Amino acid sequence: MKEFEIIQRYLAFDSGNRKDVITGIGDDCALLRVPRGQRLAVSMDTLIGGVHFLADSPARDIAHKAVAVNLSDLSAAGAEPAWLTLSLSMPEFNEKWLQDFHIGLKNIVEFFGVQIVGGDTCKGPMSITIQAHGFVPENVFHRRSGAKAGDLICVTGDIGDAALGLKVAQKELELETLHAESLLRKYFTPNPRIAAGIALRGKASAVIDISDGLLADVNHISQQSGVGALIRWEKVPLSPAARQVTNEKMLQQSVLTGGDDYELCFTIDEDDFESTFHALETVGTACIPIGRLTGKPGVRVLHNKQELELESLGYQHF
Amino acid sequence: MKEFEIIQRYLAFDSGNRKDVITGIGDDCALLRVPRGQRLAVSMDTLIGGVHFLADSPARDIAHKAVAVNLSDLSAAGAEPAWLTLSLSMPEFNEKWLQDFHIGLKNIVEFFGVQIVGGDTCKGPMSITIQAHGFVPENVFHRRSGAKAGDLICVTGDIGDAALGLKVAQKELELETLHAESLLRKYFTPNPRIAAGIALRGKASAVIDISDGLLADVNHISQQSGVGALIRWEKVPLSPAARQVTNEKMLQQSVLTGGDDYELCFTIDEDDFESTFHALETVGTACIPIGRLTGKPGVRVLHNKQELELESLGYQHF
Repeated sequence: MKEFEIIQRYLAFDSGNRKDVITGIGDDCALLRVPRGQRLAVSMDTLIGGVHFLADSPARDIAHKAVAVNLSDLSAAGAEPAWLTLSLSMPEFNEKWLQDFHIGLKNIVEFFGVQIVGGDTCKGPMSITIQAHGFVPENVFHRRSGAKAGDLICVTGDIGDAALGLKVAQKELELETLHAESLLRKYFTPNPRIAAGIALRGKASAVIDISDGLLADVNHISQQSGVGALIRWEKVPLSPAARQVTNEKMLQQSVLTGGDDYELCFTIDEDDFESTFHALETVGTACIPIGRLTGKPGVRVLHNKQELELESLGYQHF
Repeated sequence: MKEFEIIQRYLAFDSGNRKDVITGIGDDCALLRVPRGQRLAVSMDTLIGGVHFLADSPARDIAHKAVAVNLSDLSAAGAEPAWLTLSLSMPEFNEKWLQDFHIGLKNIVEFFGVQIVGGDTCKGPMSITIQAHGFVPENVFHRRSGAKAGDLICVTGDIGDAALGLKVAQKELELETLHAESLLRKYFTPNPRIAAGIALRGKASAVIDISDGLLADVNHISQQSGVGALIRWEKVPLSPAARQVTNEKMLQQSVLTGGDDYELCFTIDEDDFESTFHALETVGTACIPIGRLTGKPGVRVLHNKQELELESLGYQHF
């Protein structure tokens, strides 16, 4: 099968013909219309088989995750997703795998109303690069560097499930089926917080999506804003499944340094807490304070009023 | 070295801070401004070591080529290049290689006045994915499917040099040093025809960049426009170096099916030839007719009034 046919059959869809796409997939370039008064937000991420996903994962989950992590970057920018471009490299042409990939892609693309406008396929090691494109109204955007000491640090949902799910997949953690499946789902098919990102426009002083790990991502915010951070372990929300994990060190490690959750972590002025809480409530998302930004550089975690030793959890200070 | 540092040190540049970049490299998303009255043209291409470039090529040439092939797609759309995003996967951190890559990247990026606004690096098989972003004025764009029978098929310069350069690199072809070097340069550091693409706005009935091979790319145009094509071998421009090649089959194969030249191939109504010739002349580019579109489907090549047998040159009809 020719590259062109693969792209037409497995990466392009009839549905989702957005009005802002003048020329879509199949020509040298896609030609696109950014609505007046909107800025273009773009983010590109590569996922490599065996590094960013288990190479034997179901192809539909790989497609879902590759799109989800890119949309998640848009959510952190408060952007409304519009278009995707996708480059897929595969060791061989495997029709069954591509059909399954197509299903995963179609589901998430249709769910978020985005359109794939450009694609590239080639023979090579399994890897997927996606660029997500979205819109942010002029003058309304948040970035990582606007936070200040005293701001509350909040998250939009349970932390650590994805990292624990990976441990379940790798048979390093055993739980009742119901809990195990719930964690696996969080690892394989994370959901980007698009609506929450839009709800946080103009409210959050900084927003990031939790991809590298809670501490690492809080550290990105605090470093770029020139402040420190203090997190209270007891406040970090855990799912019912995570609460079944009896190995405390594994739990702390997964929650604090695991990453891959794609919940949003954001900072707000304490006075804005109530309005932010309600704005997120209207889109069905939680707003959970887990700590505060401080004047003292570095990221610290308090557990029973004691400071946790983060190095022992595999956290590298920068 | 952390991913963030690699990106800051080797993929981001101080220079070239375009006014249309609100947030550049380093945040979750880049935030960009498309000028009023302009459409956004985007194109993504992946180059894999050992497939699209020789893995032992100088890193600066790899950087040049990865950017050039993407800008070339923009040129075929008549777009003015603005921004790049780049994802680099490397088997190991090699500072010397990265420094050299940085030099190649900086040179071509500065030459074309584009800015790298987003990046990703990871450990994995050597591969580079770039997305190029450019602007096309509203209602002025060309695509592959507007050509009609009778239109002239033209190219902007010598064809076949890149494929012959690859043969020199692989020691399958020997020529005098001067000629050999000229062909190698065409293969390793092709130059996208940006100014020519802009000059062709509103004149060409279809434009494509020659990446897959002259016949394959002419076939893309003719298929999408529902016509056929007749090319006259004697009219296809050859460089002085290519004219030194005595193996006629190797020469025909390289010129007709080799690809990687990144000259533009375009079709125009015969009545527009003179004005197109002059428009290209003002940007220092040739306008060389090599054949015509016809009503008979398929791509044919005449040599001494005889039809060439294309299968013997490795050309697969679609």
